[in-house]
Amino acid sequence: MIGLHAIASYVPEGSISNYDRREQFGLTDEFIAAKLGVSKVSRMGAQEDTAALCVEAFRRLQRKRPVPAGEVDCLVVCTQNPDGHGIPHTSAVVHGEIGASERCAAFDVSLGCSGYVYGLSIALAFMQANGLRQGLLFTADPYSKIVDPDDKNTALLFGDAATVTLLRPDGPWLAREFLFGTRGKEGAALNNRAGRLEMNGRAVFNFSATAVPGQVAQLLERAGVAAGDVDLFLFHQGSRYIVDTLARRLALPAAKVPCNLAEQGNTVSSSIPLLFERYIDDPAVRRVLMSGFGVGLSWASCLLER
Amino acid sequence: MIGLHAIASYVPEGSISNYDRREQFGLTDEFIAAKLGVSKVSRMGAQEDTAALCVEAFRRLQRKRPVPAGEVDCLVVCTQNPDGHGIPHTSAVVHGEIGASERCAAFDVSLGCSGYVYGLSIALAFMQANGLRQGLLFTADPYSKIVDPDDKNTALLFGDAATVTLLRPDGPWLAREFLFGTRGKEGAALNNRAGRLEMNGRAVFNFSATAVPGQVAQLLERAGVAAGDVDLFLFHQGSRYIVDTLARRLALPAAKVPCNLAEQGNTVSSSIPLLFERYIDDPAVRRVLMSGFGVGLSWASCLLER
Repeated sequence: MIGLHAIASYVPEGSISNYDRREQFGLTDEFIAAKLGVSKVSRMGAQEDTAALCVEAFRRLQRKRPVPAGEVDCLVVCTQNPDGHGIPHTSAVVHGEIGASERCAAFDVSLGCSGYVYGLSIALAFMQANGLRQGLLFTADPYSKIVDPDDKNTALLFGDAATVTLLRPDGPWLAREFLFGTRGKEGAALNNRAGRLEMNGRAVFNFSATAVPGQVAQLLERAGVAAGDVDLFLFHQGSRYIVDTLARRLALPAAKVPCNLAEQGNTVSSSIPLLFERYIDDPAVRRVLMSGFGVGLSWASCLLER
Repeated sequence: MIGLHAIASYVPEGSISNYDRREQFGLTDEFIAAKLGVSKVSRMGAQEDTAALCVEAFRRLQRKRPVPAGEVDCLVVCTQNPDGHGIPHTSAVVHGEIGASERCAAFDVSLGCSGYVYGLSIALAFMQANGLRQGLLFTADPYSKIVDPDDKNTALLFGDAATVTLLRPDGPWLAREFLFGTRGKEGAALNNRAGRLEMNGRAVFNFSATAVPGQVAQLLERAGVAAGDVDLFLFHQGSRYIVDTLARRLALPAAKVPCNLAEQGNTVSSSIPLLFERYIDDPAVRRVLMSGFGVGLSWASCLLER
């Protein structure tokens, strides 16, 4: 079985403070801290793009767990903001940049906030079926490319980041159960029709606050695991308010529901691996439930164990 | 095991004749027929988009093999020209349009001419791993969105189309072996940096004419199958010249290497399923080798048997 072996990430140093925008958007400190939960949103540099974020995440992985690029045989990038209008795919660009071999399979998956959970299932199943043994699953969706800086609904929320997860036969974390959901008819709630992200925050919140608890409960039931036997619930970091709402609706203790929005914002498909990076080597953490939700509308949950 | 059960396709009726453009581009009939092999390129209507092509392909599938949309539990779209700048993903839009259920997993894969072979492996492995039983794999990459009508390298070649492949436990065609290759460093040979497709035809041809025969030979060797025991070789329909070159280099009889470029052109990830649609129910055809190659640069081959 292929498992998760390591995670590395790159959050660009550049950022925009939400406290500096109190006046522009008429914000209270209470709103920034308790509802949004985002002090500042990370921003990639003018010279950076989606592939560059992935390459920097890979460099950081090399410092943690050296992986000879020539041995990578599967390279997946999850993004909805590829470079160069998507041709070639960003995974091919990253493949070239890191110097992977010709034998390496490479493709992009287009999903938003549910992308890491989906990406894990897609990459693990694909590797398993094809006998591949060194996989890299990247997430990189720099929404700064499409966020209107004057749109209060999105400009205060979305930050840029990339992560990479190393998938290998000796990876101690195994995925046990996945569940997926799609509500395509409501997809307009998060769209980019005119080259700019538009979000109906209320619709996305209502969807998340109802669909996610249901799926989490169903996943636990299918796996025959009680919520009390899960060490951590890693929810997509949509906002402080949605994370708190999910914890409350599922009656989870706050200590089991970490939140890391404050320093970079909602990083779309990178939010869950950014959280899991903190715990993946923690021997006290042995069972984790992840749930991502957003663009599509789409949601996905999984249970990982080591 | 999940297998391929049926294929349906949609080639829009609109088209542009290459014979009408002889003067504009200084073409000979010999060049159009023997090198390009494309009499006309199909063009979707002004009201159509990528999702609409998929929905029409699904309608045509319904006439062949009725599939209740509510029973579809996996919906994958392979495209590099999604609608609405990719947010939401086209698979979610199609999910909403056909009225699939909330339990249906949906995601896009971003790949070009290697996309159908990859898409088969990705969708089959994902369905198998997650116990899904009614899958739809769509291909739809209407290059008319990005082709410069005055660019001889691309305007005469690329046509619009969509296909859908029904994947089910009772599908008689099983995928036996896959091989994948990526040459990211040469990805600039097919790019869309500035919103327009640019192709270095010579570089793409040279890559295809060398990489594909090697991968096909390796696939046959791994599967322990002689070329003579394969009923059909379904190559991506890049151009008449590349298909003929591959047949010659692999010493394959012309009857085993069908070509259907003439009436619609190179339809990117739809070219192989458009070809396979002709043979999938033919009882005389029992073993098929497919190979797609292009954008990335990326190439992928597989062996299907029933």
